[in-house]
Parts: sequence; structure tokens; C-alpha cells
Amino acid sequence: MVQPHAIGRLSLYRRLLTDHLNPGTQFVFSHELATMARVSPAQVRRDLMHLDSTGSPSKGYRVDELVASLGNELDHPTGQLVALVGIGNLGRALMTYFQGRRERLAITAAFDRDPEKVNRVYQGCRCHHVEELETVLKRDNIRTTILAVPAADAQRMADRLVAAGVRGLLNYAPVPLRVPNDVYVEEQDMTTALERVAYFARERRPPRRED
Amino acid sequence: MVQPHAIGRLSLYRRLLTDHLNPGTQFVFSHELATMARVSPAQVRRDLMHLDSTGSPSKGYRVDELVASLGNELDHPTGQLVALVGIGNLGRALMTYFQGRRERLAITAAFDRDPEKVNRVYQGCRCHHVEELETVLKRDNIRTTILAVPAADAQRMADRLVAAGVRGLLNYAPVPLRVPNDVYVEEQDMTTALERVAYFARERRPPRRED
Repeated sequence: MVQPHAIGRLSLYRRLLTDHLNPGTQFVFSHELATMARVSPAQVRRDLMHLDSTGSPSKGYRVDELVASLGNELDHPTGQLVALVGIGNLGRALMTYFQGRRERLAITAAFDRDPEKVNRVYQGCRCHHVEELETVLKRDNIRTTILAVPAADAQRMADRLVAAGVRGLLNYAPVPLRVPNDVYVEEQDMTTALERVAYFARERRPPRRED
Repeated sequence: MVQPHAIGRLSLYRRLLTDHLNPGTQFVFSHELATMARVSPAQVRRDLMHLDSTGSPSKGYRVDELVASLGNELDHPTGQLVALVGIGNLGRALMTYFQGRRERLAITAAFDRDPEKVNRVYQGCRCHHVEELETVLKRDNIRTTILAVPAADAQRMADRLVAAGVRGLLNYAPVPLRVPNDVYVEEQDMTTALERVAYFARERRPPRRED
């Protein structure tokens, strides 16, 4: 079974190839990609072995082929819609950050319960009242959601999302979610991340990063 | 050596105790904390074993003592200052999110190169020109920094921060940083996180979360 860290590396390789190579670069060696991604060349070769793009020992991988192969692995063939629940300061920043980055992964629905926000358009995306959550998710077959609501609302909202068919949750609410086994959650716990960085900034010898 | 995941759990336990218990709760059992944190009771007991707060088998841990012990482990005794570099949409949202959460971990300096932002005050925190980076960090002995600059500026800015004495970096720029071994970096790669969630939302059987 494919593991989350492996998918994370494929996502990073693609972004490095599309955003961080010198313009016009046609070929890349696994060791070059490894240096940019901060992993070993052997790791890069293992990760790319399963793709339909094969490198040559003398020239490396063709960049355009490799980007296309990574897209075939990472993206839904015809595109995948994403909902954002909670359009406060953080939600709006996330919307601005994500919107337009990936053609085949777009936030197309936002939800909030604040009447000031409902029916407004953020980055080309309409904000619906949370009461419409189930209707819109089912109508648009949305299975991927970013959760940016206050901690007190997070579990109740996650339960509704799962009941409405959501199978992937990116959780920015600062509380861990309980979900069924067939739902994938990634916790983006920013407070814990900052407390951890602050802790290790005081240590003489910080640990190696855990991958 | 203490590992990042262990510190992350201590941070989570504290937040669950302070924000998610019913008001007036005086005692908590390890299995109750474990349920809230989505870990095993044995894990909670192992994590708390090294603290100076001891639970009783019949009543559990005293909540106030446990919160104080966790603070002694996690926080700098007299407080630790944090700098935020890059005060665009994401930087401002992070500022709003973090400011006021922890008495002993406060963002006290922001930096940007946009003349529109320099000398403005965000959430009580002045934005300096990046040219003042070294001066302000050294004057205030700041060793912990949140990086929220565009990818193209991230490595150069990280090099300057490290040279100015920063030893902990929370990186929101979408590119991995190269830093010396004695600097701790936590990558908050939001694009990869969303692509991973989208990927597993399409899978029949998502993987168990990797801790």
C-alpha cells in the first residue's frame, strides 16, 4: 500500500521540478532532485521506480515526462473539487494560498455560518451557509475538505462532512478529529508545531528530522 | 534525547487540558487524556512519566498540577520571543492565529520588504524592514522564527536567520530548507498536505496515520 510520506515526496518532487529548476532545463538526475528535496538519491529512485517515466543513466529523467508521470499519479484524471469549511482569517489565507496552484485540484465551495460572509465570493469561490453543506457536497461530489473552523466546532463539523461522503480532511482546527477508518485525516496543528520549534531552538543538539 | 513527536504530544495534552475539559474538572485519568489525544493510555503514561506531576491510580492526575508541569517542560522559564518573516496574506493570518495564545511564547517582531507594510503594527507587533533583521534579532535575542516568504526568497532568508543566531524555524514557504545540523526546522508544506489528502480521499482503504 502506498504510504503518506511517499505521496508527500512525489508531490514535493513535482513542485521542485515545476517551480525550482532553471528555465529550459530538459533533464534532471536523481541526485539533483534528491539534493533539492533533502532526501537520498536512492530514495528518489525508489519513489520514481513505479512511475511510467524512466530515466537514462547518462542523461537522467526528462523533466516534462517526469512532471506528467507525477501528475498521473497524484491528480485525479479529470480534476478533483475541494471544499473549505470556515472562512475566518486563516480560511481566507488558505483560500488565497491554494487557489490557482493546481488545475486539477481546486477549491470550488466555501462554507461559513457568519451571515456577513455567506454569499460573498472569495478568490472566485462562493461562500455558502453551512446549512447547505450536505446539498452542495453531494451535488458536486466533493470528497476532499479543508477544515478551518474553531476547535469547539471541529468534531461536529467533521461528523457532518464524513456523513456527507467526505473521505479526506485537512484539519487546521487545533483539536484532533475522530473519524472512521476509511477516512484520511491530516492534522495541521500549528500551535504544536510552533511550540516544538521553540523547544528545540533552546536545545544544544536538536534531533534529526523525523520523516 | 527527547524526540519531536514526544514534544508534540506534550503540547497537545496541555492544550486539551486547558481548552477541552469541562469547566471545573479537577482530575483526569490517563485513559481520558488518551481518548482526547487519539493515542493509547500507555503512551500517555510514558510521556508523563518524566514530568514532576504524578497521577494516583484512583483519582488520576490533578489537572492544574499537570498543566503546570507541562508548561515547565514546554516553555522557556521567563518567556521566549518569536519573529515572523513575511507578512503577506498567510503571514498576517499566522500572526492573528498565534498572537495571545501563549503568554511565554509571543511573536514580538515581524519583517517584510514591502514599504507599504514596514512600520505598520500587526496584532500589536511592529513590522520592520528586512534590512533590520540581524539588528533586531540580536538585540532581542530571538532564536525562533516563523518563515512565511515566497519560495524564491526562502533559502536566502533562512541563511540570514541562521547567521543571526536563529536555531528553530517553522517554515511555511513551499520549499525545503538547507540548514546546519544544530538548527531545527519544521516544514509546514501545505500544498503537499492537500495533495496527499486529495490522493487518499480517492483510495478505497486509506493508510493508518503515521505518527
